[in-house]
Amino acid sequence: MTYCLGILLPSGLVLASDSRSNAGVDQVARVHKMAIIAQPGRSVIAILSAGNLATTQAVVTALRESTGSGDFNRDLFTARTMFEAANIVGDTLRDIIGHESSFVQPYADPSGSFLVGGQITGEKPRLFQIYSAGNFVEASDRSCFLQIGETKYGKPILDRALTPESQLDEAAKLALLSFDATMRSNLSVGPPIDMLRYQADSFSCTNFMTLEDNNVYWRELRHGYADGLSSLIGRLPAPPPNWET
Amino acid sequence: MTYCLGILLPSGLVLASDSRSNAGVDQVARVHKMAIIAQPGRSVIAILSAGNLATTQAVVTALRESTGSGDFNRDLFTARTMFEAANIVGDTLRDIIGHESSFVQPYADPSGSFLVGGQITGEKPRLFQIYSAGNFVEASDRSCFLQIGETKYGKPILDRALTPESQLDEAAKLALLSFDATMRSNLSVGPPIDMLRYQADSFSCTNFMTLEDNNVYWRELRHGYADGLSSLIGRLPAPPPNWET
Repeated sequence: MTYCLGILLPSGLVLASDSRSNAGVDQVARVHKMAIIAQPGRSVIAILSAGNLATTQAVVTALRESTGSGDFNRDLFTARTMFEAANIVGDTLRDIIGHESSFVQPYADPSGSFLVGGQITGEKPRLFQIYSAGNFVEASDRSCFLQIGETKYGKPILDRALTPESQLDEAAKLALLSFDATMRSNLSVGPPIDMLRYQADSFSCTNFMTLEDNNVYWRELRHGYADGLSSLIGRLPAPPPNWET
Repeated sequence: MTYCLGILLPSGLVLASDSRSNAGVDQVARVHKMAIIAQPGRSVIAILSAGNLATTQAVVTALRESTGSGDFNRDLFTARTMFEAANIVGDTLRDIIGHESSFVQPYADPSGSFLVGGQITGEKPRLFQIYSAGNFVEASDRSCFLQIGETKYGKPILDRALTPESQLDEAAKLALLSFDATMRSNLSVGPPIDMLRYQADSFSCTNFMTLEDNNVYWRELRHGYADGLSSLIGRLPAPPPNWET
C-alpha cells in the first residue's frame, strides 16, 4: 500500500509520500514515491505514485528520460501549463498500461495512479490527481487536498483542520499528522516520509525533506500532538450522568 | 454503509451505532442498528448490525421472536455465557444466509456482520465480532475495540487515545468523536447515533441514549473538540525554516 497527499494553497503546495513497498508481508522494501522534475527558475513538477510499482516506475522513468527531447507527448519541459503536464503523465500511463497490461494481469493488478503538483512560469501552482485510466481531476479552493493509496485513516484530521486559508507551515504539520494517523493504522504505509513544501513563485525545491522515524522534529510533533490530544479529550465535557437527551 | 463500534473495558462496555441505511444516494432511510435483548437482573445482550439490512433484520427478528422459546439454537435467554450467545447469533446468520443467498445474490450482496456485546450473570462483560461466515472473534485487553462497516475514518482517534485503562465516560467521548470523524468523511454514515454505556455488573440498559444532530451534549463535545484541536495544532512546533534533517 501507499499513502500520498497533495495540498494546494494560495501560498504554495505541500506534497508528501511514504516509502513502503510490499508484495505480501514478507517482501517489504523502501522506495521513492515522489519524483521531482524541475527546470530551475522555470518549472517545478512533482509526481507522486501509488499502485503497481513496475507500472509507476516505468511511467516516471520514461518521463525523466524524455526531458529535453522536445517530444510534446513525453517531455515535461515542453508543457506550457500544469494541465499539459498532467496530460503528458496521463498519456504516458495509458501507453505503459496498454503495453504491460496483458502480460501482468495474470499475476497482479497493473494499475497505478499519481498526484501531479507544481508550477510552471506564468501560472499559479496547481495540483492534479491522475486516475489509472489516465484521466484526471484538479484541486481547487473547494477541495484543496487530494490523496491516493490508503486515504481514509489520514482524512479526518485534514477535514477538521485544513482550510483554504491555512498557511504552508500549518498545512505541513497537518500533512505529517495525517501520515502519522495512517502509519499507526496500516503497516503497509511506512517511513521515511518525503515531503516537499513548495512556496508559490519560488521555482525552488530546496524545501524538500526526508523524515525518518528518529527525526527530531517529527518526534517532537508526534509527541506534542499525542500529549495535547489526550489532555484535550480529558478536558472535554463528560456525558451527562443519566444520559437523557 | 454503516458504522458500529464496541469498546470493552474492565468497567463495562460502550456500544454505538449510526442509523443511516442507503441503497444508492437517492434511497436513504433511518433504521435501528442496535438491538438489546435483556433479562432484567440476569443478562444484557446488545447486537449491532452492518451489511444487508434484510439479512440483519431477519437475524435480529428471529432472535427476538425466539426469546423464551427454550430453543438452544435460537433463544438467547438459554445462553449461559456470551460465547454461547455469539454462537447463537452466528448460527442464526448462517441459517438466514443459507436460505436467502441464492435468491438475493443476483441483485445484491446478502452478507451481514455483527458486534455482540453484553454480560450474563457469572461472567464479566464480553464483546464479539461475528463475520459474514458466522464465525467470530472476541475482544480482549490487547484489542479492546471492535468495529464493523466503515471502520477506517474513526480508527485513528481510538488508536491514539483509547487504552484498556480508559474509564467508561472517557471511552464514550472517544466513541462519539470516532463517529464524528466517520460521519464527516462518509455521507452514508449518519445520525442519530444510538449509544449504550453498560456498567459492568449493573445488568441495566438505562444508560442508553439516542443522539440527534441537535443534541446539546453532542454539539458541545464536537465544538469543544474542533476548537481544542485547532488551538493544539497551532501550538505545535512549526517545521524548521530550512527543513534540514
